Amino acid sequence: MSRDLAAFARERALAGIDWVEFAVEWRKLYQPSMEEVRSGRRPWTLLDVLHRESLVKLVQRYGIRGLSEADLDHMNRAWHRLDPWPDVVEGLTQLKRTRIIAPCSNGNIALMVNMAKRAGLPWDCILGAETARAYKPMPEAYLVSCRQLGLAPAAVMMVAAHNGDLRAAKAQGLATAFVARPAEHGPGQTSNLVPEDCVDVPASSFIELAAKLHA
Amino acid sequence: MSRDLAAFARERALAGIDWVEFAVEWRKLYQPSMEEVRSGRRPWTLLDVLHRESLVKLVQRYGIRGLSEADLDHMNRAWHRLDPWPDVVEGLTQLKRTRIIAPCSNGNIALMVNMAKRAGLPWDCILGAETARAYKPMPEAYLVSCRQLGLAPAAVMMVAAHNGDLRAAKAQGLATAFVARPAEHGPGQTSNLVPEDCVDVPASSFIELAAKLHA
Repeated sequence: MSRDLAAFARERALAGIDWVEFAVEWRKLYQPSMEEVRSGRRPWTLLDVLHRESLVKLVQRYGIRGLSEADLDHMNRAWHRLDPWPDVVEGLTQLKRTRIIAPCSNGNIALMVNMAKRAGLPWDCILGAETARAYKPMPEAYLVSCRQLGLAPAAVMMVAAHNGDLRAAKAQGLATAFVARPAEHGPGQTSNLVPEDCVDVPASSFIELAAKLHA
Repeated sequence: MSRDLAAFARERALAGIDWVEFAVEWRKLYQPSMEEVRSGRRPWTLLDVLHRESLVKLVQRYGIRGLSEADLDHMNRAWHRLDPWPDVVEGLTQLKRTRIIAPCSNGNIALMVNMAKRAGLPWDCILGAETARAYKPMPEAYLVSCRQLGLAPAAVMMVAAHNGDLRAAKAQGLATAFVARPAEHGPGQTSNLVPEDCVDVPASSFIELAAKLHA
């Protein structure tokens, strides 16, 4: 994310901005923006729209001038261009041999499709907030995704790097697997380093997860 | 479809039914069942549910006895086990190199995912009636699918074997391609043998379509 923004800034000769910090600040607006929708204070709104509103706020706060609407769209689509963790393509490809694999993300369909196309993620379909019209960790986000697959929650496994996500899925009857991402928040990460009691299957990577499920 | 039903009938020693005719009769109930939803007389209902209701009607009409709920579920999932036309996997695989490929079908997500898993259809995501909550040929079925990809209708091509489907897509601004399936309705097929004036790109197969689009 910060590399993507920094590359764009170099192209546009935008100097003097710490893009790592900018990305962290952008991410900080993620939960509050979804909470407006989850709480019902705001009607259903796609994540691309929430991300873009947060971006506009940050651009103003940082005093960045001269960006066109197309520039803001490009920056906003940095979320569509995230790189996968290095084990993911191989691990998902292995899992796909015996399972239906789909994201259950808060990202909207276009975001997830574009990310998958660029990264080669071999999902069978895209589920999550947009198809369920509910943001995680609301129960509907998990339950509607299972229903859309025609499967009982107990026949579905939620895989995540966040215990809170897995706790919410477990509460709806899904099986759970935790793949730690200790570098997600940089070197200072203190949370989600180890699986909590809501986790059925802990794994260090998607490759290890596939091996455990196929064993 | 009829082969799938006939195989099940042999397993269950159900004799004396013409399963080709049964499948034709089942298919005849498809449009009227969706029309109940399109017209607003009935709230949104998935195709799996409509198919199963039609199946129950037919089983009664044919006087077939002794089927359990699980038997009916199995028969209903014959729609999840349709074989692709022989050019489709190769053609879609070629198209996928340069395009986002997704069905825009009246089939629900579980139906399309199960069909794709079994047949090896490499779709990037599943769009259509369930994600749009509208049955084709309603405009929303096409427009919401484009919006969910984050694309303008003019940037999307609808591919179908039915001129009526393409006419409805064209009316919403999508590009169109027609791939004739002259054996879809058996040897007596009289409609959808040739592309009509709503068709931008005619092709004899998905392989030819990929070649034309990549030329």
